[in-house]
Amino acid sequence: MLRKILENVRNQPPLVHSITNYVTVNDCANIVLACGGAPIMADDINEVEEIIAICNALVINIGTLNERTVASMIKAGKEANRLGRPVILDPVGAGASTLRTETVFKLLKEVQFSVIRGNVSEIKTIASGSGRTKGVDADISDAISEDNLDGMVAFAKALSQKTGAVIAITGAIDIVADSQKALVIRNGHPMMSRITGTGCMLTTVIGSYCGANPDDLLLATAAAVSCMGLCGELAFAKVAAEQAGTASFRTYLIDAMSRMDAQTLAGGIKIETR
Amino acid sequence: MLRKILENVRNQPPLVHSITNYVTVNDCANIVLACGGAPIMADDINEVEEIIAICNALVINIGTLNERTVASMIKAGKEANRLGRPVILDPVGAGASTLRTETVFKLLKEVQFSVIRGNVSEIKTIASGSGRTKGVDADISDAISEDNLDGMVAFAKALSQKTGAVIAITGAIDIVADSQKALVIRNGHPMMSRITGTGCMLTTVIGSYCGANPDDLLLATAAAVSCMGLCGELAFAKVAAEQAGTASFRTYLIDAMSRMDAQTLAGGIKIETR
Amino acid sequence: MLRKILENVRNQPPLVHSITNYVTVNDCANIVLACGGAPIMADDINEVEEIIAICNALVINIGTLNERTVASMIKAGKEANRLGRPVILDPVGAGASTLRTETVFKLLKEVQFSVIRGNVSEIKTIASGSGRTKGVDADISDAISEDNLDGMVAFAKALSQKTGAVIAITGAIDIVADSQKALVIRNGHPMMSRITGTGCMLTTVIGSYCGANPDDLLLATAAAVSCMGLCGELAFAKVAAEQAGTASFRTYLIDAMSRMDAQTLAGGIKIETR
Repeated sequence: MLRKILENVRNQPPLVHSITNYVTVNDCANIVLACGGAPIMADDINEVEEIIAICNALVINIGTLNERTVASMIKAGKEANRLGRPVILDPVGAGASTLRTETVFKLLKEVQFSVIRGNVSEIKTIASGSGRTKGVDADISDAISEDNLDGMVAFAKALSQKTGAVIAITGAIDIVADSQKALVIRNGHPMMSRITGTGCMLTTVIGSYCGANPDDLLLATAAAVSCMGLCGELAFAKVAAEQAGTASFRTYLIDAMSRMDAQTLAGGIKIETR
Repeated sequence: MLRKILENVRNQPPLVHSITNYVTVNDCANIVLACGGAPIMADDINEVEEIIAICNALVINIGTLNERTVASMIKAGKEANRLGRPVILDPVGAGASTLRTETVFKLLKEVQFSVIRGNVSEIKTIASGSGRTKGVDADISDAISEDNLDGMVAFAKALSQKTGAVIAITGAIDIVADSQKALVIRNGHPMMSRITGTGCMLTTVIGSYCGANPDDLLLATAAAVSCMGLCGELAFAKVAAEQAGTASFRTYLIDAMSRMDAQTLAGGIKIETR
Repeated sequence: MLRKILENVRNQPPLVHSITNYVTVNDCANIVLACGGAPIMADDINEVEEIIAICNALVINIGTLNERTVASMIKAGKEANRLGRPVILDPVGAGASTLRTETVFKLLKEVQFSVIRGNVSEIKTIASGSGRTKGVDADISDAISEDNLDGMVAFAKALSQKTGAVIAITGAIDIVADSQKALVIRNGHPMMSRITGTGCMLTTVIGSYCGANPDDLLLATAAAVSCMGLCGELAFAKVAAEQAGTASFRTYLIDAMSRMDAQTLAGGIKIETR
C-alpha cells in the first residue's frame, strides 16, 4: 500500500497550491519538489480560484497570517471543496493569539478540511476552542507519551469525527487518525525541532501525497508523516557522522526526501494501528 | 567578450533592485551576491523610485504578485526607464491565471523592458496574449527541442522585435535573442527543475550582468544564462559524487556561482549563434 | 560572565518575536533556534500585542518595510516597552530612501529601543538625521578602521547617551557601546558580507541573548556580536578546507552557531574594553 502511495506521487506529480507563511515558504516549495510534487504559491484573492482549479491539493498555513491572505484562504478553500480537491490545514500557533485562534475557527466554519496537521497544543486548541501555546512550539506538558497515548488516540479519533478531517498530531510520537482508525508513528528525531519549518514542510508533503492519492487520505497522510520522520532520522545520522549542525540537518532532511523510495520507506517505517 | 562581461560585474559591483516573490527571494539575494552584485529588495510604492535611482538594474518578478506590489512594479519600472536603467521581467506563471496574464500585459504596456526571461509556456503567453501553464513550470508539450529549434529561434526574434526586449527562453535548450540575432545555449542539468527558484535566480543574475553591462544586453543575458547552466552542471557533478540530494544541489549551485571565473565559463560554455 | 550569558540562553530558551523582512526571515528563524532561542514571526496589527506578551524580546527589522507592518512595529514596540521586554532595532538601509529614514525616526520617537544594531552607514543616518547608503550595505568610506576607532567609540557612546539604547555598529571591526563603556570586537570574516542576512541574523541573535539576559544588555549584545563573528571564522575555515562557496558558508555559519558553547566562545573571542 505504501509503495502505491509513493508511486502515485512520482508517476503523476501532484500540483500543490499553498497559501502559507513567508518564514518557511521556500523550504515548503523545495520539499514539495523533493517528494515528487510541483508547488505553486499564490495568495491574491483575484487568482486563488483559478489556481486551485489547476491544482491537485490546497495547503493552508496560518504561520504569518494577515487580513488580506485570510480572505484568500477562505475563497480558495471553498473552491477546492467545490472541486473535490483535498484541503490541508496547518494551524500554526493556534492558541498563541486571539487572532490565530479565531481565524482557525473561521476557517473551520467556512471550509471542509480533508486533513488537519499540527502539534498537540495547536490541535488541542482546535478541539477545545481555547488554548495557550508557547509561541509556535508545543507546550511540553501537552506532549504525547506512551503514558497518555491511548487517551490521545481517542482524542484524535473524536476530533476527526467532529471535524470530518483526518487529524495528524505530530511530535515525538505522531498520531494520524480518522474517526475509525488511528495510526501511531514513531519515526523522527529531536533535531527536527531545532530547525524552523519542519511542521510546515510536513504539511506540504501531506498535501502532495493527498493530492496524488485523494482516495486514501488516511494512509497518504500517515505515509507522509512517517516519510518525513524517516528523513529526519537519515539526516541526523549524516549530521552526527560529520559533526555538523542544524543548517546541515535542514539540507540533509530535504536531500533525504528527494532520494526516498518505497523500499527505504518500507524498511524504516515504524507504524502501528490502534 | 565574455571575460569582459564577467570582469565588469566583479570590478564595478552592480546594485540590483528586485521587486519579487517571497518564495525564492532569499535565494535571489544570495545569488546576486554570489555572482558579484549587491541586492536590494524594496517594494513599498513610497520608496521604489528612490531605490531604483541608486541602483544599476531593476528586476520585476510576479511570482507571488498582489495589488500592492504591482503598483510598485509599475512605478519603479517607469522610473528605471526614465533613468535608462535595464529592467528585467520574469513573468512567473503567466498563463496560469487571468490575474497573472493581465498583469504581465499591463506591465508590458506601462514599462519598456530590456530583457524578458521565462520558460517557453510563459513566453508563449506573452506572445499570444493567452495561454495555460502547468502552474509555474513549463508545459512539456511546449519544450524547445532540436526538432523545433529553428521555429523557436524565429519566434524569439519576432517577439524581441515586437517588445523591444531581449527574449530569454530557458529550458533544456535556452534561446537568447534580440530581433537580429539569437544565441542558443546548451548548458544546464535537469536537476535544476527539481529545486524552486532556478528561474528566479537566473533572472536576478541577468539583472546583475545587465546592470554591469548596460551597453550589451544580449551578450550579458547570454553570459548569465550560460553561467547559470554551467553552475547547474558543476553542482550536479558534486551531488552525484556525494550521492546527495536536491537541497545540496541548491547549495552547490550558488557555491559554483560564487566561485565562477571567466576561465571556467569559457571552458564550459556551450553556445552557438543562429 | 560570558559563560553565564550563554547558559541563560540555553537553560531558559527565550521566545523571540520578530517583525522583519521577507528576504532573510527564514535564516533569522533558524539562527534563533541554533543559538538556543525559539522564534515567532507575527506582524498583523491585531495580534502583535498578544504575541509580545508571551515573548522575552522583540526584534524590529525594516528590511522590506511597508505601511502595514510599520504600524504593527510601533504597536508591538510600545507594548514591549510597557512590559519591560528588550526591543532591538535593525534599521536596514536607513539612509537609502526617505521612507526608510523617516520610518526609523518615527520608530525612535514612538518606541524606546534597548539595542540598535546596524552597519556604520545606517547608524550614522540615525545619528545625523540624514544619510545616503549604498543600498543595504555600508559605504566603504564609512568603515571603522584602527585609524578612526577612538572617534567611532566616542560617537557610539554619544549616540547611546542620546537614544538610551546600546549601540552596536558592526563591520570589519565591531563596536558595542552604552553611554559609559564600549567593547571593541575583532571577530568575523569578510565572507560574511558575501551572503545576505548576516546582519539580520546577528540582530535576532542579539534579541535571543538579550531576551535571556535582560539585566545586562551591553554584555549580552557584545557576546552575540562576538559569537556571530566567531561563527563566521569557523564557517570560513570549513569553506576554505573544502574549496566550497558562499551558500556552504551560510550553512556552516548557522551550523557553528548551533554547536557553539561557552568554552569555544571563550577561546575565540577577541574583545577589548575602551
